[in-house]
Amino acid sequence: MNKWYEQSGSDHDVVVSTRVRLARNLAEYPFPPRMSAEQRKEVNEAVKAVIFSAGDAVSGEFEYIDMESLSPDEAGAMVERHLISPQFAKKRAGKALIMTKDESVSIMLNEEDHIRIQVIKPGLAPTEALDLADKVDSMLDSALNYAFDSRLGYLTECPTNLGTGMRASLMLHLPLLEANGALESIAGAVSKIGLTVRGTYGEGSKALGSLYQFSNQVTLGISENDAAENLESIARQIIGQERALRANVSQEAKSLDKIWRSYGILTSARLLSGEECVKLLSTLRLGAALGIIPGVTTEQVGVLLHEAQPGMLRMKADKPLNPQERDIKRAELIRAALKQ
Amino acid sequence: MNKWYEQSGSDHDVVVSTRVRLARNLAEYPFPPRMSAEQRKEVNEAVKAVIFSAGDAVSGEFEYIDMESLSPDEAGAMVERHLISPQFAKKRAGKALIMTKDESVSIMLNEEDHIRIQVIKPGLAPTEALDLADKVDSMLDSALNYAFDSRLGYLTECPTNLGTGMRASLMLHLPLLEANGALESIAGAVSKIGLTVRGTYGEGSKALGSLYQFSNQVTLGISENDAAENLESIARQIIGQERALRANVSQEAKSLDKIWRSYGILTSARLLSGEECVKLLSTLRLGAALGIIPGVTTEQVGVLLHEAQPGMLRMKADKPLNPQERDIKRAELIRAALKQ
Repeated sequence: MNKWYEQSGSDHDVVVSTRVRLARNLAEYPFPPRMSAEQRKEVNEAVKAVIFSAGDAVSGEFEYIDMESLSPDEAGAMVERHLISPQFAKKRAGKALIMTKDESVSIMLNEEDHIRIQVIKPGLAPTEALDLADKVDSMLDSALNYAFDSRLGYLTECPTNLGTGMRASLMLHLPLLEANGALESIAGAVSKIGLTVRGTYGEGSKALGSLYQFSNQVTLGISENDAAENLESIARQIIGQERALRANVSQEAKSLDKIWRSYGILTSARLLSGEECVKLLSTLRLGAALGIIPGVTTEQVGVLLHEAQPGMLRMKADKPLNPQERDIKRAELIRAALKQ
Repeated sequence: MNKWYEQSGSDHDVVVSTRVRLARNLAEYPFPPRMSAEQRKEVNEAVKAVIFSAGDAVSGEFEYIDMESLSPDEAGAMVERHLISPQFAKKRAGKALIMTKDESVSIMLNEEDHIRIQVIKPGLAPTEALDLADKVDSMLDSALNYAFDSRLGYLTECPTNLGTGMRASLMLHLPLLEANGALESIAGAVSKIGLTVRGTYGEGSKALGSLYQFSNQVTLGISENDAAENLESIARQIIGQERALRANVSQEAKSLDKIWRSYGILTSARLLSGEECVKLLSTLRLGAALGIIPGVTTEQVGVLLHEAQPGMLRMKADKPLNPQERDIKRAELIRAALKQ
């Protein structure tokens, strides 16, 4: 089965992926920070039982992973694939993950909340992602006793998630809006209507590879569907702006040159640092989206953005790698993939 | 017929080319700066008559070019191929050039001296180049009345050429001695034994593309053969030092990476400035010399170093080119050549 990031999605020229997560808790237990080891185990078992008794069609899709059974490297590679949070990977005692084989649905157990349902879809698909998250949510809701208040909605460990417990986000590839200097004003504008923007790779606000994550911040006084539709409609405007800037790229010698050089370096280099690799793949993604580099697709670039990360490279090599060995392996991976 | 720079030469991993020139003047005429138009014409005709009456074997190789018949662009492209001096291209009135079709022998008439015989050979070949220059010299000497003094030797317009009138030079590719910082001390050392070093491309002492020209400075009190052998023996030491540094390049990830990136950019870029192109070709030449880039030879890189120059590109395009058009044409030329 292909991973979600190997599949094509709607508006993939600009939209890399859509993510929806629902935070849920069980009424009978304190929030994870105050739980005993025994209680954590009970929550894991309770959720596992619901998922794996739901009939072959659903159960067959999922696997259950005791986080304590994973090495730090294995857990780190899961963070890189956006399957789990960095905190979840770091302190793994009493935690568990239930996920589908295509990695599009993952359920973190005993993270900040008892249950964190996450759905990732390629391209622009907030409604589809929310629908799928809702299905998993309903399945669990029908068998478990959620902590729910008729006035406040779903109760969560952190008050910022109270209400819907829902966060929807879109990862957008915006190289030309970034180059144009327009992203700061966009970030300012969307913050006024309840959205947040941040870089996907790199520290803090630094957006390596021109990849920006837009997400809703409001979880009270708005339905999940309205929040998802709100995010989508704002994203469509930003996508339109990015596309308008892209219209003439094929006629600009400097832009074509930059795109082709990225391809040339990626297909030739013997050493590639993580940071340089993301930058070059970002430029290559633009070339792929515009059909400038024949045979290279945005999906292929998306796969490489995943596989070229340190933990993924280390897992593939099946041995520890020093920084230069990692840069060599990264360059090998990219060359082999683009040679095809 | 292949140009000399398309042919392979001895020690071509380090030595690009060997050049020998002999300065000669005719006793009956003042030096060119003080000649009348009529006298210049007489010198041109006299030399032309000797070359083209020398029998089919020799004459068939040569062509006679009235420099006044050339456009500035055509003359500029000849400077780029080291056929003529920049001054010779600039003021073309009364000047003529006799050259072989492979461009290995060229005779400038009425440059600084009445006759400047130049021979260029690929690789390390000072003796062969001197032999060929001597043949042309003897042919002219037997029919013309050279300005010669039994004590001073050949009389020349500039006193620095008095005596043999001979200058021999080698163009060496020394990327690792340059990177090593060793070139300054080499330049200092060889100057003490009568040699001069200067960059081949770029302004003043700046050696673009790690290409350095070593030439003899002494023309008095030493025979042509001794001067040529002296140059060769010093060059052999420098070549040995460069080769010693190259021994481990194939095992160094950073060096391999730099070489392969140069190849990647050259085969992909859509815009290449002259300066960047020389730098990248220089690194590619090292990769070719070490057999790192399959299918690319030092001769091929040598051809590209010639053809990628502004005047050559303009001649090939057969129309004026603005700087961006030139950079586009340069990138096209390189891509097409390396794709083969």
